[in-house]
Amino acid sequence: MPATTSRLTGPIAAQDFASVFARLKPHMAALDVFLRNQLAAFEPEIRDMADYCIDTSGKRIRPALVFLSGWSGSDTPAGDLVRVAAVVELVHLATLVHDDIMDEADLRRSRQTAARQYGSEAAVLLGDALFSHALHLAAQFPTPEVCLTVADSTRKVCAGEIVQTLRRGTTNITRQDYFRVIDLKTAELFRLSCFLGTRLGGFPAELVEDASRFGRHLGIAYQIYDDLADFFGKEKSIGKTLGTDLVSGKVTLPLLVLLDRLPAEERAGLVDEILGRRQPDLPGRLRQMGEHGVFAAVAAEVETELLKAEEALAPHAGFAPVPLLRQLCDTLRYQVGSLQA
Amino acid sequence: MPATTSRLTGPIAAQDFASVFARLKPHMAALDVFLRNQLAAFEPEIRDMADYCIDTSGKRIRPALVFLSGWSGSDTPAGDLVRVAAVVELVHLATLVHDDIMDEADLRRSRQTAARQYGSEAAVLLGDALFSHALHLAAQFPTPEVCLTVADSTRKVCAGEIVQTLRRGTTNITRQDYFRVIDLKTAELFRLSCFLGTRLGGFPAELVEDASRFGRHLGIAYQIYDDLADFFGKEKSIGKTLGTDLVSGKVTLPLLVLLDRLPAEERAGLVDEILGRRQPDLPGRLRQMGEHGVFAAVAAEVETELLKAEEALAPHAGFAPVPLLRQLCDTLRYQVGSLQA
Repeated sequence: MPATTSRLTGPIAAQDFASVFARLKPHMAALDVFLRNQLAAFEPEIRDMADYCIDTSGKRIRPALVFLSGWSGSDTPAGDLVRVAAVVELVHLATLVHDDIMDEADLRRSRQTAARQYGSEAAVLLGDALFSHALHLAAQFPTPEVCLTVADSTRKVCAGEIVQTLRRGTTNITRQDYFRVIDLKTAELFRLSCFLGTRLGGFPAELVEDASRFGRHLGIAYQIYDDLADFFGKEKSIGKTLGTDLVSGKVTLPLLVLLDRLPAEERAGLVDEILGRRQPDLPGRLRQMGEHGVFAAVAAEVETELLKAEEALAPHAGFAPVPLLRQLCDTLRYQVGSLQA
Repeated sequence: MPATTSRLTGPIAAQDFASVFARLKPHMAALDVFLRNQLAAFEPEIRDMADYCIDTSGKRIRPALVFLSGWSGSDTPAGDLVRVAAVVELVHLATLVHDDIMDEADLRRSRQTAARQYGSEAAVLLGDALFSHALHLAAQFPTPEVCLTVADSTRKVCAGEIVQTLRRGTTNITRQDYFRVIDLKTAELFRLSCFLGTRLGGFPAELVEDASRFGRHLGIAYQIYDDLADFFGKEKSIGKTLGTDLVSGKVTLPLLVLLDRLPAEERAGLVDEILGRRQPDLPGRLRQMGEHGVFAAVAAEVETELLKAEEALAPHAGFAPVPLLRQLCDTLRYQVGSLQA
């Protein structure tokens, strides 16, 4: 289908940040059907709860990475890619369910979190059931490689979340500490998605390796953007409560930069807010971030990672997935830019 | 080694409830070494926490089931059985970590629970990391069958725990409801252990199937015993806080029988305790259980399941695992008996 192929590999306007995802419509529809069909595998008693978590309003970034990395030029999604996209999405959904318990967040994707809906105790186990089902699906591939890499990445994601949780309400965190956590908790699953996509797509080992590296840097960039959005986003458009990182004492890059740039006499107040010794003053902190150029400094870090991601793909320009994956970098640049709009 | 083999298949006194396990010493030692070696695979930041969970003081019942089901007559444990024993034990440890969050228990195996030690938030994720590592090990077998069955059983265990959690503090629970929950949350992993042990031991399909059925009934029997021990055990010897089921509003078989046998005018008080409307009166309830023959009624249910377990193995008396597995039934009978001593 040359017309389709040309539509899919042609240039897209960076302004239209949804366009890459729009091209994945048949793939995402197949993923939705696949995920819905999984509900029957859950024990009847927990089927409704699983259904609540497998909603369709998520951004499905990791499945998109799987589909784009495995891109063959066809509009018909390959069954293997759909299954593995479901695996990474279920792992991600499970971590969200557990995350929202930690964060005591009310909203996720503009709906009550599972923890609020069913209680945090049931949510712990519901997350477990989603994890287990993801690995059950991963084990259905003829070789154990998928299950092996998914389980390994899942453990890394958990390790990242644990370290982040244990550091809550402490301020002696370095930039290295911050990058280590986001590498584990976010970049690992982005990396895995690109690894599995190119691998199942049958691409050469060099591309598989470099696409994995691309995924990792894109994941780091995405998490920095997400942490920036927690301060500078619009609650309605990102669908979750803003300022939760400061409120919960989580020191992300915007706070690290602000801590670094504030004069010593003003720093103590912010430290007290992070340590939970006094009520966080979100509007005040946003004003200070404006005064000290925090947005630009953090956005520059996103850009550094995006350049590394693009560099990883540079030797492989001729392969079908490459132009599509690169467009994701522009998409993220656009999203960072629109936080300031 | 004929002397060893005869020692291992000879009759054991039911009074010596530890004797089957004593025979597994080299296997358990190999399991411990294997589990310790796994710590290196965990991210450095969470290694100490994983170490805390992989303690050596547990009963290791599920690994024992794996080793006994796969019994070849040799004192040297097969590598495959050690690995799969580690898998089921890690899944079990992960569920314990999550269970103790639900139960708000202080003690597990006479030590602080992971939730008390590290906080319940980190414990959620630590359980996840143990799960993931179990599935990572499961994926290292040449065929995906191990990973597939482990993931499936894990989801069932979680489903059982969820249903139990959602029923906390409700009294409209039938015996069928109770049996469904313990079938999922306990019997499933016992069943899996026997399935994987006989399967990896290379036994015929009929034995694999019947040993799985044996494991399931033994698991149901074991959970009923465990629920009985929550009322009638000795805190020091079972290493956990007693009476937690009543305190947390969990209606187990001893309470179901008591509810059934109490005169209507006395039942309301117990219902209020389960619903959390008034402080549970554990000594009073134990006295009532004595008056109404609750112990004997519940012990009879254990016996019913043990007979079903033994019956499953009846056609396979000639296979090496069978006499050993049957001894486990006598072991459990002895343990039930010693609750009353």
